[in-house]
Amino acid sequence: MRAIEITRGGGPEVLEWREVPDPKPGRGDVLIDVTASAVNRADVLQRKGFYDPPPGAPPYPGLEVSGVVAEVGADVEQFAVGDEVCALLAGGGYAERVAVPWQQVMPVPEGVPLVEAAGLPEVACTVWSNVFMLGRLRKGETLLVHGGASGIGTFAVQLAKAFGANVVVTVGSTEKGERVKELGADAYVNYREEDFAEQVKADVILDIIGAKYLAGNLRALRTGGRLVVIGLQGGVRGEIDLGALMAKRASVHGTTLRARPVDEKGAIVRSVVENVWPLIGAGAVRPVIYAEVPMSDAAEAHRMLDSGNHVGKILLVR
Amino acid sequence: MRAIEITRGGGPEVLEWREVPDPKPGRGDVLIDVTASAVNRADVLQRKGFYDPPPGAPPYPGLEVSGVVAEVGADVEQFAVGDEVCALLAGGGYAERVAVPWQQVMPVPEGVPLVEAAGLPEVACTVWSNVFMLGRLRKGETLLVHGGASGIGTFAVQLAKAFGANVVVTVGSTEKGERVKELGADAYVNYREEDFAEQVKADVILDIIGAKYLAGNLRALRTGGRLVVIGLQGGVRGEIDLGALMAKRASVHGTTLRARPVDEKGAIVRSVVENVWPLIGAGAVRPVIYAEVPMSDAAEAHRMLDSGNHVGKILLVR
Repeated sequence: MRAIEITRGGGPEVLEWREVPDPKPGRGDVLIDVTASAVNRADVLQRKGFYDPPPGAPPYPGLEVSGVVAEVGADVEQFAVGDEVCALLAGGGYAERVAVPWQQVMPVPEGVPLVEAAGLPEVACTVWSNVFMLGRLRKGETLLVHGGASGIGTFAVQLAKAFGANVVVTVGSTEKGERVKELGADAYVNYREEDFAEQVKADVILDIIGAKYLAGNLRALRTGGRLVVIGLQGGVRGEIDLGALMAKRASVHGTTLRARPVDEKGAIVRSVVENVWPLIGAGAVRPVIYAEVPMSDAAEAHRMLDSGNHVGKILLVR
Repeated sequence: MRAIEITRGGGPEVLEWREVPDPKPGRGDVLIDVTASAVNRADVLQRKGFYDPPPGAPPYPGLEVSGVVAEVGADVEQFAVGDEVCALLAGGGYAERVAVPWQQVMPVPEGVPLVEAAGLPEVACTVWSNVFMLGRLRKGETLLVHGGASGIGTFAVQLAKAFGANVVVTVGSTEKGERVKELGADAYVNYREEDFAEQVKADVILDIIGAKYLAGNLRALRTGGRLVVIGLQGGVRGEIDLGALMAKRASVHGTTLRARPVDEKGAIVRSVVENVWPLIGAGAVRPVIYAEVPMSDAAEAHRMLDSGNHVGKILLVR
């Protein structure tokens, strides 16, 4: 088969569409004939040489795909050849085929075209596991999402609104802010012009910035608030005021999805199919697609992500 | 009535046993004729002028008492005059009488002398709410408790063992370590001689030190670990490695008990009576009493606490 290889650590130009060995599905795996994949920031880190795939994962980038089941391992009863599916991967999505443990495979939600389903697994599993399972966002509470125009941001806004929460986002431009308001956000803060910590009080914060926003996030948290850090675009080490944390009875959680063992990913995936897929089927939440780029030209898709002008997901289509 | 007044911020000598106005119970209050109170580190901070009582609380120190119900407000159906009780207070325990919302009042656990019950409310509510309700310690997991010989430490050790967890404590001497092992601790680290972060891997950490131990606590946490900070004896501001937090999928919680609203305290108290009191009744967990001091000589009890030689609770008895 062919896949995108990272020929060395570097810019988008290091991504090359090449002939590589076919994946060999194990007894518990599903082999998917890939229709589309999607670009995530973790892929960019991997491209630069900063984020090796976990042991056992394919070396090619790509944390999610949609496609058609081509083969199932001897132990797999949940899926059959010909099923249209999407899947959460530990890597290897930028490829014609990928083998993945059946626990990480999901049906395509009702009403979603197979191509667009490639943009759902990462955002749905990330937002559901962090904002709802871990952050326990409840109806009437306020969620603050940093990077509101990202794939994760656009999905978090819709999902939180569907569950009756208030949602405020930070964005880098008025244009993006208005776009995210159309998706349901109650308000936005343009971080280039205003200090979000002065503007927002939140019960749950989904953060991709890390150290640079830590003090502001703690200021923005309400009593009993939960800060969930899932990215470190603004640095790794920051000062924390534990006195403020105690006074607010607040918590700081750090998580990643990719490194989790298969059974934990499986638990998240099942919970997503149960709780999120019906909302997509009902039209309350939908994938927000910014662009569809041929998979062989993954470099172009990475340039798009690097430029930061997108709203929603960038797909790689075969 | 008489109570211990903090005549000014300072050392134990500022505590004076004086005639003060009687408390007036509200419609939802229970008036307790105090048999005993107990000393907590928060009382020392209040004595020094660093920790004002929350609005509405009596100005006298004392976060817990045992005694006999002398009067109940018009709305109180749960307790009657003559009941032997103990209670979690927002202040005012170093006194002959104290009025407290009925939600914070508990029966005396079976088999515990009324005087000794004064040493239970703070440790039981603190350990149960932080280690179990918030930290969700499970059977087979490891709990690390800093200050293992303190009132909280000696109680946490017993309660965690009763629920089938492993328990490691830090202490300041071999003597204290051996004493806490007798209470069930699996191991101890003498922090004057060894670095706990090199010795211990824990799923839940109950911490009273704060900033000084933050880096070590994060190192000691296992994947999925929960650090619960309830004291800041080692400073307020510390550096946190959010990358390590993410890699471990760990969390840092800060909490206090005293500042919580009555309904939250009530929920904790009910859960303690339901889950902890039966273990005390069965003899699996017992109050560890270091000394009983006349309440009028609270200054002496504070000197004892300041010296740091105690194992367990110091009671103030009328």
